[in-house]
Amino acid sequence: LYLMPADSPHPLLSLADYERAACEILDPAALSYIAGGATDEVTLRDNVAAWRRLALRPRMLVGVGRRDPSVELLGVRRPHPLLIAPTAFQRLAHRDGEIATARAAAATSTIICLSTFATTTPEALAEAVPDAPRWFQLYVFSDRGVSRDLVARAVEHGYEALVVTVDVPVAGVRERELRAGVRSLHGEQLASAAAAGASGEMTPADFGELVDPDLSWDDIERFVAESPLPVLVKGILTAEDALLAVAHGASGVIVSNHGGRQLDTVLSGADALPAIVEAAADQLDVLVDGGIRRGTDVVKALALGARAVLIGRPILCGLAVDGAQGAQRVIEILLAELDNALALAGSPQASNLDATFVMPAPWPDRSR
Amino acid sequence: LYLMPADSPHPLLSLADYERAACEILDPAALSYIAGGATDEVTLRDNVAAWRRLALRPRMLVGVGRRDPSVELLGVRRPHPLLIAPTAFQRLAHRDGEIATARAAAATSTIICLSTFATTTPEALAEAVPDAPRWFQLYVFSDRGVSRDLVARAVEHGYEALVVTVDVPVAGVRERELRAGVRSLHGEQLASAAAAGASGEMTPADFGELVDPDLSWDDIERFVAESPLPVLVKGILTAEDALLAVAHGASGVIVSNHGGRQLDTVLSGADALPAIVEAAADQLDVLVDGGIRRGTDVVKALALGARAVLIGRPILCGLAVDGAQGAQRVIEILLAELDNALALAGSPQASNLDATFVMPAPWPDRSR
Amino acid sequence: LYLMPADSPHPLLSLADYERAACEILDPAALSYIAGGATDEVTLRDNVAAWRRLALRPRMLVGVGRRDPSVELLGVRRPHPLLIAPTAFQRLAHRDGEIATARAAAATSTIICLSTFATTTPEALAEAVPDAPRWFQLYVFSDRGVSRDLVARAVEHGYEALVVTVDVPVAGVRERELRAGVRSLHGEQLASAAAAGASGEMTPADFGELVDPDLSWDDIERFVAESPLPVLVKGILTAEDALLAVAHGASGVIVSNHGGRQLDTVLSGADALPAIVEAAADQLDVLVDGGIRRGTDVVKALALGARAVLIGRPILCGLAVDGAQGAQRVIEILLAELDNALALAGSPQASNLDATFVMPAPWPDRSR
Amino acid sequence: LYLMPADSPHPLLSLADYERAACEILDPAALSYIAGGATDEVTLRDNVAAWRRLALRPRMLVGVGRRDPSVELLGVRRPHPLLIAPTAFQRLAHRDGEIATARAAAATSTIICLSTFATTTPEALAEAVPDAPRWFQLYVFSDRGVSRDLVARAVEHGYEALVVTVDVPVAGVRERELRAGVRSLHGEQLASAAAAGASGEMTPADFGELVDPDLSWDDIERFVAESPLPVLVKGILTAEDALLAVAHGASGVIVSNHGGRQLDTVLSGADALPAIVEAAADQLDVLVDGGIRRGTDVVKALALGARAVLIGRPILCGLAVDGAQGAQRVIEILLAELDNALALAGSPQASNLDATFVMPAPWPDRSR
Repeated sequence: LYLMPADSPHPLLSLADYERAACEILDPAALSYIAGGATDEVTLRDNVAAWRRLALRPRMLVGVGRRDPSVELLGVRRPHPLLIAPTAFQRLAHRDGEIATARAAAATSTIICLSTFATTTPEALAEAVPDAPRWFQLYVFSDRGVSRDLVARAVEHGYEALVVTVDVPVAGVRERELRAGVRSLHGEQLASAAAAGASGEMTPADFGELVDPDLSWDDIERFVAESPLPVLVKGILTAEDALLAVAHGASGVIVSNHGGRQLDTVLSGADALPAIVEAAADQLDVLVDGGIRRGTDVVKALALGARAVLIGRPILCGLAVDGAQGAQRVIEILLAELDNALALAGSPQASNLDATFVMPAPWPDRSR
Repeated sequence: LYLMPADSPHPLLSLADYERAACEILDPAALSYIAGGATDEVTLRDNVAAWRRLALRPRMLVGVGRRDPSVELLGVRRPHPLLIAPTAFQRLAHRDGEIATARAAAATSTIICLSTFATTTPEALAEAVPDAPRWFQLYVFSDRGVSRDLVARAVEHGYEALVVTVDVPVAGVRERELRAGVRSLHGEQLASAAAAGASGEMTPADFGELVDPDLSWDDIERFVAESPLPVLVKGILTAEDALLAVAHGASGVIVSNHGGRQLDTVLSGADALPAIVEAAADQLDVLVDGGIRRGTDVVKALALGARAVLIGRPILCGLAVDGAQGAQRVIEILLAELDNALALAGSPQASNLDATFVMPAPWPDRSR
Repeated sequence: LYLMPADSPHPLLSLADYERAACEILDPAALSYIAGGATDEVTLRDNVAAWRRLALRPRMLVGVGRRDPSVELLGVRRPHPLLIAPTAFQRLAHRDGEIATARAAAATSTIICLSTFATTTPEALAEAVPDAPRWFQLYVFSDRGVSRDLVARAVEHGYEALVVTVDVPVAGVRERELRAGVRSLHGEQLASAAAAGASGEMTPADFGELVDPDLSWDDIERFVAESPLPVLVKGILTAEDALLAVAHGASGVIVSNHGGRQLDTVLSGADALPAIVEAAADQLDVLVDGGIRRGTDVVKALALGARAVLIGRPILCGLAVDGAQGAQRVIEILLAELDNALALAGSPQASNLDATFVMPAPWPDRSR
Repeated sequence: LYLMPADSPHPLLSLADYERAACEILDPAALSYIAGGATDEVTLRDNVAAWRRLALRPRMLVGVGRRDPSVELLGVRRPHPLLIAPTAFQRLAHRDGEIATARAAAATSTIICLSTFATTTPEALAEAVPDAPRWFQLYVFSDRGVSRDLVARAVEHGYEALVVTVDVPVAGVRERELRAGVRSLHGEQLASAAAAGASGEMTPADFGELVDPDLSWDDIERFVAESPLPVLVKGILTAEDALLAVAHGASGVIVSNHGGRQLDTVLSGADALPAIVEAAADQLDVLVDGGIRRGTDVVKALALGARAVLIGRPILCGLAVDGAQGAQRVIEILLAELDNALALAGSPQASNLDATFVMPAPWPDRSR
């Protein structure tokens, strides 16, 4: 169970270690894009802090010699509850970009969600790493033809679900990026076929402006009707919207604030989750992302009713530090911590976790 | 939407940037006057912090391609909910003083509230910038003739409302000013016609002593009866007083603690607002000032029931940094952030915001 | 109203300024005795912090041209609600000791509570400063004869009330004193007639051991019966004990934790006050001490139902900085702040303050 | 009552002083083992902080000249409520290890709980310090024969109770140890007879892996049935598990999170205690450990319903600083503080403390 790599010169024992290492490696502009959030970054910081405001209620003497982290997701048994969140432009973190991430996904049986704004096309990824379980994340452009085309290519190349991101009708105000001068950075990544609606030199913000700000629940219903894949709506933070997702036929919602990059001072996933689970978890699958850094965070998310969790920045940090191997190691650390936490929380079956295992922490939030 | 001025050597992206820049530019005595608050400055700090203790509840997929920040204020549709708060002695911030502020107001269709203790007369401002929408702020002196004269001049020169400040029966204890030696500073500004009751060399504290400490609700009722302009009462922090404002005929109240400069440890505007809205918002217009620094703060104020918000110190910081242009830029930044926040909160019409968009934040107040 | 002494080289504007100045002047051993508290000093720090966790609810337009800080105490109208708390060994702070404090009391019409462990006898003080209003603080020794003798002398020399301290059955654990080596310090002060039960070289701790740990409510009842003076019980922190004070005939209780010097992690006066007022303020006078540093703190104490407040360490700091004049200045600052706070809170009569003027603060405790 | 050793060059007045001194003395690997906790050490820090989030409600004038710290534990009157917690490998702290600790126990009539992973055998300790009151802590190995043998030896050598630790089905993730390289450290201590199931070079983690992860409540019931000694279950954090301990015949539970070394973000003993006391204290003895550093902490634990408290790390710090004498001094300091706190809290009989003496603190948790 102990996690230290034998004779490692850099003992990277935790996801926090990978984050620190990535901060030293990445160039400032890429770092600002990967690490930054919206305006004052209140929500960005709180995504991590919110999980620590929950305490675990461990049970003893239940027999934990064999642990089983598997969960059921969209009706399918998966070996564990981790997914790789869709993050754009992964070549900013490492030259191998999404292909490396897919290798880490394949090695650990983790679903990778490929971003519309990936620096790899959906077909290139499927061909390079055919055994990576994969979902496709869709930004819906004002030009709906682009979106339909992307969905068709995803269906054709073995993507198993469609994640429609709905919290970017316009781009957030990301001052850290602006200060670091992200504007002039991405020339070489523009070959991305995912950026089918794009042309010439573009920035993350430019991509953001391709997205249709008038996307509506009717559009979601249309995607559900037209797509052979289950549709998950990503970016939901209220019970009201989770119920609308049910009403419009979604198979799941991903409780998310877009990594704190869109509207500052909205709730973290950890805090938004319970009301959404209560309202809608009996009708669709609820997933959550944002701030998951420890196995105990995963246990808490499942105990609160999430079926699975998505990991974003830590994967990029793993990529930055050591490419596919770094991303894989990040997942392995989290899986080892999850195994340990299941044993010590007295819930050897991940799928048996329920709300009795978690409570508001009596301690104050000591994060700065 | 991105806010960075092209090729700016000083990327002033936010109101906080302007505050920092102004701190470097202003001389210590002027800075102490502009930035300081009463005694321990508990309320001063909390004015900003309180807005961050509110979380936004954003709604998705409502169609936000077109945003409309307009609000109705005193029965009139205004293009946006920002006003420039009345602050005294603006030539302390920049030699162009209130004239520059009025230019910024005119350029952005923002109402400027001219202070009784302005370093410009009401008529000079009206003549210099006739297209600036303008209200007049009234300190009521023991010599009522001065006040009546000021009101008459304001009416004559196109001021559209009267803001009677009621939270300065005596001046607050402002140690920062005293330590910086504000006493010997304002000789040249004394030409101000607004200081009609004044003579010789005076300090801010001296001006304070002109104000009648025995001003009463009957006086308010008399101003309402005598003035052709709607009367707003500025400096209300309790529901009881808001109801008295209704009873005595006021058209509005401005929930305010005078920028934390009067009585320390009173509530911020953000915290005082809900009870006042609940008690009186169906009978008069409720506005709020204090600590508004982000577009999200404006959204929160409107969601809590304010019709509009007033901005004080950030305008002075804009003035200090770059005169009329700086003040204008401060307003433009806030309007751009407001536009972004309306889109991302899923309430494209500012006037449709309601209490479902805001909740107490689950995170701790991390401000120092 | 402004408080800055003209052309002062050391602008000591607030009680905090005097504390800082005293820290620089006092020798480390005396400072440790004056400034220190019990063990981890949790309660010591919280005495000051607790007042800041209360917010004021100011009322406007009530007419505050004339303020009246007077209060009724033990049936007598006093010009203001401040008392000088009994603190031992005041010559540790300044060579003039209690005589200087009495001069400050006389100059400001403030009641001085002379400590049993004063470095001046009750008669010497009465003779030196006959116009200082004065109460006598009694530690009850195992040798009851000493106590009876002290009371008789206090009665004879014009002390108007008896304050029996009940929270020192044994001395607190004061590590700061022990580290600073207070043990070898007090030789010269032992001439104190107050220390009638003492002989030879003694330390504060030695004095503490003279006090009878078996003092009981029956003793209080006996003092009430035997003494021509009203008896106040000092050191009460629960409603239960306040009701016992009523039952045993006390005229008042002083809500106090002995300046955080006795049992660590007990409540501050500010937090203990409301339950005691609710239980007993209709039957005896409730006073409070601990952490009062601002005029707003005094307003809050009165609003919560205290009749008066006692000031301890700030007086010693005033003494340390400038003898009688320093102590007087400390009282004058607090009175000026009180006057300002009464005006700005909209309660020009101190005796009209009630619970509607105060509420739990919405801000976090930012003290360290 | 004052605690300063005469003329001590190192005035170690408190348990915190001993902790600081031990940090300077211990080698980094041993320190990491002794001082560290699981992953982010949230629970480790909170163990100490949680006691400070409780306030004492002291009563006055009850007569505290004679204090009696004795308590009834497992039906036997003990002179005071302190026990020495079972901690492994005490020779890491000092070459005399558990023998020295037993000497401190004997000198202060404190029960020592000898760990299964002690660096001294149960019989060696009993022979070396026969007058130390002693309990035996049992880790149950997959090889049940080892456990039965250990119990038989404990019974034979005068151990009075059996403490079965149930919160180590697997070892916690202790990054501080891994970073300090604890792996290569314990060669010489392996002669421990307690480690009967072990062979060759082992680390703390290796020992952890001997423990049976499938230990169950049925095993507890079997130990109760087979053992002539009362059985306490150590590591309980929920009322549910305390009731199961009752149902399976345990004589007591020790509310504990294993010093924050097992699952991070579980409750401290202080916070877990009340629900367990409410559920089960009428049916078995409830003890608590974790973070006790002051006499006031002991008073709070007893007031919340614990019969006794266990002290772990401070004993090791005492050992590290000065062997048996250091451990003894740590206990004496805590007993002196307890005596002082009983007097000042107004509960001279420790066994009379109840929930009226304690309440949630109104102050914030200021620990970092």
